[in-house]
Amino acid sequence: MAQQIKVGIVGYGNLGRGVEAAIRQNPDMSLEAIFTRRSPESAGKGLVSISEIESYKGKIDVLILCGGSATDLPDQGPALSKLFHTVDSFDTHARIPEYFNKVDESARSGGNVSVISTGWDPGLFSLNRLLAEAVLPEGNEYTFWGKGVSQGHSDAIRRVNGVKNGIQYTIPREEAVARVRSGENPELTTREKHLRECYIVLEEGANAEAIAEEIRNMPNYFSDYDTVVNFISEETLRAEHGTMPHGGNVIRSGRTGQGSKQIVEFSLTLDSNPEFTASVLVAYARAVYRMAQDGQKGAKTVFDVPFGLLSPKSAAELRKELL
Amino acid sequence: MAQQIKVGIVGYGNLGRGVEAAIRQNPDMSLEAIFTRRSPESAGKGLVSISEIESYKGKIDVLILCGGSATDLPDQGPALSKLFHTVDSFDTHARIPEYFNKVDESARSGGNVSVISTGWDPGLFSLNRLLAEAVLPEGNEYTFWGKGVSQGHSDAIRRVNGVKNGIQYTIPREEAVARVRSGENPELTTREKHLRECYIVLEEGANAEAIAEEIRNMPNYFSDYDTVVNFISEETLRAEHGTMPHGGNVIRSGRTGQGSKQIVEFSLTLDSNPEFTASVLVAYARAVYRMAQDGQKGAKTVFDVPFGLLSPKSAAELRKELL
Repeated sequence: MAQQIKVGIVGYGNLGRGVEAAIRQNPDMSLEAIFTRRSPESAGKGLVSISEIESYKGKIDVLILCGGSATDLPDQGPALSKLFHTVDSFDTHARIPEYFNKVDESARSGGNVSVISTGWDPGLFSLNRLLAEAVLPEGNEYTFWGKGVSQGHSDAIRRVNGVKNGIQYTIPREEAVARVRSGENPELTTREKHLRECYIVLEEGANAEAIAEEIRNMPNYFSDYDTVVNFISEETLRAEHGTMPHGGNVIRSGRTGQGSKQIVEFSLTLDSNPEFTASVLVAYARAVYRMAQDGQKGAKTVFDVPFGLLSPKSAAELRKELL
Repeated sequence: MAQQIKVGIVGYGNLGRGVEAAIRQNPDMSLEAIFTRRSPESAGKGLVSISEIESYKGKIDVLILCGGSATDLPDQGPALSKLFHTVDSFDTHARIPEYFNKVDESARSGGNVSVISTGWDPGLFSLNRLLAEAVLPEGNEYTFWGKGVSQGHSDAIRRVNGVKNGIQYTIPREEAVARVRSGENPELTTREKHLRECYIVLEEGANAEAIAEEIRNMPNYFSDYDTVVNFISEETLRAEHGTMPHGGNVIRSGRTGQGSKQIVEFSLTLDSNPEFTASVLVAYARAVYRMAQDGQKGAKTVFDVPFGLLSPKSAAELRKELL
């Protein structure tokens, strides 16, 4: 085997742990260090304080940034792409152009390559949106998410007075998905596309009906949807709602020639959202390494990366085995 | 609008007509000429004899080769990639490495770029096999084809004595698809994955039962499958079996972490197989044009082409709108 790609992980939450596990599935990679902002004492065995990261320059080929998009990545992306080749899953859609420009500038100044905003959405879903639109310019695109936990909506219900704990699932409506798959090209409202389902643990003495009403009418989060509110015990929440499934479908329904219906669909059914995102990050870390070897510099997105760079196989092997 | 990409079509069968229609859906492209091997007299208005193609050098940016993989492309691909940037849908899987090498040599000698073997399989299905394998290295891949017409199997039944005309559909078995989607990772035999359905018009006086038996036992084509043979009239064949639907699914069922099931699926439901393949060829013609502008040379496959090059939108627009 050729020399392994030396990987570093920044951030050791669910995503960082997922990357650690994914690297074990890829024999062409080795994990060199996991960096954390926690103090060295509390950090745990084998973790390295992020304050020491500069001393790892030259020892790490690609750094995988596993922090959050709200507060970690806006600083870490630009700062660390000056020092290392990086890959991240920055997912605040509206701020991607601004983030791209910052990382591009810092990566170029450091002579590095950085793939930003990979994962599954943004990431694999984005790739399929682009591909299907390029192939079927006359048509409509539909993205459905779920069944899966929405962190933002779960946070919103936990802020309601009288709610002790809770979780929210986004669920695509089967009828809407079926209409899109039929090639009907429907106009769908927000309410017609997704359902929201909440599982709530109440504080003692809280008024269940008032809380359900408050959630169902919450603007931005729930008022545009049909929302089902279920009340459960803390034990049930722990026992039945501890995993992080997710997924969804990107469907393009187009027309060619004299009106032939053409449907392209990409779908994911994931037991673990963070582990899958981590697996995508690791495949793109391989591409970053190869682009760096090739002398490329600056920020890139999934749209700039040929799929051949994601696989450990050579171009000739890929043509023979997978084309 | 920037200057249009000037496209030529070689071959005017179903695929060539599909490309002609697809170019009309892409305002950044113009159709310059359609070349045919037929004599100029019989060729029809607006068609150009292929013997004149050299005089179009400099007038055409990309040539889209729409001939068949059995007899046309093995000669036309190497010959024409010496003169023009080309894209084709060469689909004899086993001969792709050999074809790639020949086209690579001739394209380089002419200073051209040629994307070979695009379409949907090989093509979009290949891309999804690669992507899902790179992201989920521990797992199994399943490809299902259909419901759709298999040209090779239709030809085989039409060669049977007593068969006047006929068509064969490959149909994926719903039970098998459902087992794969569930993450069960089944071992599936050929017979368990697909069903074959034939619609036959008999010659007068032919023995239907003997013919059905001969078809069901035909080695390589039918003997490994459950095959349903239906007898219909010539009128019904024309009325109900004149279109060319196709499609299929590429599913990867993988595991991450401590055994989380992760399912990635790409699927196509196509009213017109040739029109969809044509639409893919046209999107890749745009990529060929851009790679040529960038000074690239030689043969490429879908694995070498970043998706960003397929879209008429700029990289900044794609990041803003589709990521």
